[in-house]
Amino acid sequence: MEKKSVSNSATNLCYIMQREHSNLVGYVHGGEMMKIMDNTAGIVAYKHSFASRAVTASVSEMEFHRAVHIGNLITSEGRLMYVGNSSMEIKVEVWVENIKSNEPKFKAITAYFTMVALNEEGKPMKVPEIMIDCEEDRALFEEGKQRYEAKKKKRI
Amino acid sequence: MEKKSVSNSATNLCYIMQREHSNLVGYVHGGEMMKIMDNTAGIVAYKHSFASRAVTASVSEMEFHRAVHIGNLITSEGRLMYVGNSSMEIKVEVWVENIKSNEPKFKAITAYFTMVALNEEGKPMKVPEIMIDCEEDRALFEEGKQRYEAKKKKRI
Amino acid sequence: MEKKSVSNSATNLCYIMQREHSNLVGYVHGGEMMKIMDNTAGIVAYKHSFASRAVTASVSEMEFHRAVHIGNLITSEGRLMYVGNSSMEIKVEVWVENIKSNEPKFKAITAYFTMVALNEEGKPMKVPEIMIDCEEDRALFEEGKQRYEAKKKKRI
Amino acid sequence: MEKKSVSNSATNLCYIMQREHSNLVGYVHGGEMMKIMDNTAGIVAYKHSFASRAVTASVSEMEFHRAVHIGNLITSEGRLMYVGNSSMEIKVEVWVENIKSNEPKFKAITAYFTMVALNEEGKPMKVPEIMIDCEEDRALFEEGKQRYEAKKKKRI
Amino acid sequence: MEKKSVSNSATNLCYIMQREHSNLVGYVHGGEMMKIMDNTAGIVAYKHSFASRAVTASVSEMEFHRAVHIGNLITSEGRLMYVGNSSMEIKVEVWVENIKSNEPKFKAITAYFTMVALNEEGKPMKVPEIMIDCEEDRALFEEGKQRYEAKKKKRI
Amino acid sequence: MEKKSVSNSATNLCYIMQREHSNLVGYVHGGEMMKIMDNTAGIVAYKHSFASRAVTASVSEMEFHRAVHIGNLITSEGRLMYVGNSSMEIKVEVWVENIKSNEPKFKAITAYFTMVALNEEGKPMKVPEIMIDCEEDRALFEEGKQRYEAKKKKRI
Repeated sequence: MEKKSVSNSATNLCYIMQREHSNLVGYVHGGEMMKIMDNTAGIVAYKHSFASRAVTASVSEMEFHRAVHIGNLITSEGRLMYVGNSSMEIKVEVWVENIKSNEPKFKAITAYFTMVALNEEGKPMKVPEIMIDCEEDRALFEEGKQRYEAKKKKRI
Repeated sequence: MEKKSVSNSATNLCYIMQREHSNLVGYVHGGEMMKIMDNTAGIVAYKHSFASRAVTASVSEMEFHRAVHIGNLITSEGRLMYVGNSSMEIKVEVWVENIKSNEPKFKAITAYFTMVALNEEGKPMKVPEIMIDCEEDRALFEEGKQRYEAKKKKRI
Repeated sequence: MEKKSVSNSATNLCYIMQREHSNLVGYVHGGEMMKIMDNTAGIVAYKHSFASRAVTASVSEMEFHRAVHIGNLITSEGRLMYVGNSSMEIKVEVWVENIKSNEPKFKAITAYFTMVALNEEGKPMKVPEIMIDCEEDRALFEEGKQRYEAKKKKRI
Repeated sequence: MEKKSVSNSATNLCYIMQREHSNLVGYVHGGEMMKIMDNTAGIVAYKHSFASRAVTASVSEMEFHRAVHIGNLITSEGRLMYVGNSSMEIKVEVWVENIKSNEPKFKAITAYFTMVALNEEGKPMKVPEIMIDCEEDRALFEEGKQRYEAKKKKRI
Repeated sequence: MEKKSVSNSATNLCYIMQREHSNLVGYVHGGEMMKIMDNTAGIVAYKHSFASRAVTASVSEMEFHRAVHIGNLITSEGRLMYVGNSSMEIKVEVWVENIKSNEPKFKAITAYFTMVALNEEGKPMKVPEIMIDCEEDRALFEEGKQRYEAKKKKRI
Repeated sequence: MEKKSVSNSATNLCYIMQREHSNLVGYVHGGEMMKIMDNTAGIVAYKHSFASRAVTASVSEMEFHRAVHIGNLITSEGRLMYVGNSSMEIKVEVWVENIKSNEPKFKAITAYFTMVALNEEGKPMKVPEIMIDCEEDRALFEEGKQRYEAKKKKRI
């Protein structure tokens, strides 16, 4: 199976936050952001594995750094960090931009997803290895590897 | 400030999974489940703190044990574990029931939320301490305390 | 066919009312409540009959006692009252809780649903009889029987 | 206060049933139909009373005569029957049309709504009387009057 | 193939604009209106052609004359203008009514849709010709013919 | 008022097409795509003008080149072409990518939006002129100018 680069599956989803995404107090609902980040991780997994189905196995260390407001333009950026046999470690960051000002973008949320590739029978299937292209991907790879091994250890 | 028991804020949300919750391959969307769990944790936080606003600060170790299907009846159970000054550690579990069979319920997802209580100015506000009623709450409290202190340490 | 108890199919759905459920003037939309109550009655019917399909035949005496507000936690409680050959009389009550106060829950809506169990060909199918466990179920049964017979008479 | 004719407030809502309106088995969700009918009755009430707010007090004898399918074009027809002091008795019928055939429209659902007009303080407000224009309105009026009086009696 | 009159496929969709249709500044979202108008044109196309599938090929000169507000009752009126071999030129107008006043309805949006009828293999299929019933349809027909021919010319 | 470059307001929205976006026959609903494109044009307008409100005045020549499928990743790209006093001519293109194959992206839809900037009183407000940075923007500018002038002429 051919190796695939990180950039091959890197995915950005970009949405404008509407009233339908708001919570009871008028900010963007944390759960809506989780849903968008889960979508982002899923697309990275599909692009890398061409799996019949890619499922979320776990999410860890989802940190909400700053609130997101209705009317903000958000970009949810997903990047593959590391792969096991059939699992993929994916980092997802949400960046926020105010479309009515010149303020710089800021990072609002970070999380780490583990996705598993399933074949048509619903069994885990082998996914391509990662081809490292640049220093940034190398650093992600090392971080992902540590996460993967820590999780594996915990399960024993 | 009076202490409050865990049962006082314990919250169950119960939904029937409709087609509108499905992902591209016909199962329940992981992101929809995250949204329901975030709602559950939020209500626990409101009930315990009577805060003006309760926000999600982080989510950790969200584990998807089994898939949820359209037509399943799900119960998202939230229980307060531990409180810091203005933060609350909340465990959320999702239980699944097939309404067309006699199979027992099973646990599909577990996650740990940290919620923060804010006052009307949007500043963190002190929340009531926990009154321990039973052994089960005691165990949750110890687990929550460890999580809280581990997170605090990591930030230093 | 084995008899089944009322508690076997008793169903509670519990939702937090979000902005998306509001009507033009900011209260919870009556139609949203009807939809949740219809879901509740449908689940009771599925649990009791294991039908291929359970359809709403009629709704009667839906009374709105008090308004429901955005941010309220509502519980829609469905209980089987009486069964005919293929029809089931189900009482649904909606209870409301304010999550930011200690006020007691109050009952906001009551309604009576008649659901019909259909088999795979879409034909009405026989449903199990009710096994009475307690005085409360007995009272429901008598009330349901009267409703059922009054409706039958009206149709003649 | 000037009398107003029935035709002045008569309201038709016309929707095409989309997949988002379907229930678990692929038909149109009964609860979606209830929501559309409640909207219809609400508009009739607003048009007749110019109330600040019109609320659903009760729904009675909602009968589902035939199933509605995804892709059907439905018309929800609301007509004022009778008015009390601040309450309005409204009949709502749902007619269904298959857009891919020449079959005639058929009536799928009927229900009777009681709406109450509230002023800006949320208190019941007097609504205009009905001006009878034709025989059809006369028949509706008599039927509505009976319903109104039967309900009143029951409450005593 | 038998000719069909314009009135045979004329379609009105009537909605009440809810909060869920609002944009960031509280008016009805232009995109929601486009979606309703596209639905209207689609139904006209289905009714005229009984096609397996009717797809939007193009939209032209969609003009927003006046803003639509939450709480407005809108009627989206679609009328067939002209047909090519497998394409249908359809005019859609949106009329707006304020349900809390006696102001007359006003026209808020106009647009011209070209829909194409496809058969079960997804290939364009011949649609019935138009039977002209009245002067209004004749005028629409001439306008539609000009549009059709102008578009055809542009493509060469 | 300072001139602003085209790249300053250029906006991409990127969505994954879910089942909730599908029409009756299982493809992506044309109206959903219109809504996303309208959002895109709106954000370009806000970024360029910092208006209090930006409204859609018209849409022209929206052409659907190819069908969009559920599961496709779409990018809606908006670019400012030309500005009048308070109006902005914006080109929006939708590109489609299949996330489970290596096929190249293709262009599915093109349209031209005219947006108007309004101030806090709802009156048209002057918008910044365009600073041309590159040949591509120059070509867009010339095309936009012609469209603007053709429309102006038509109105006289």
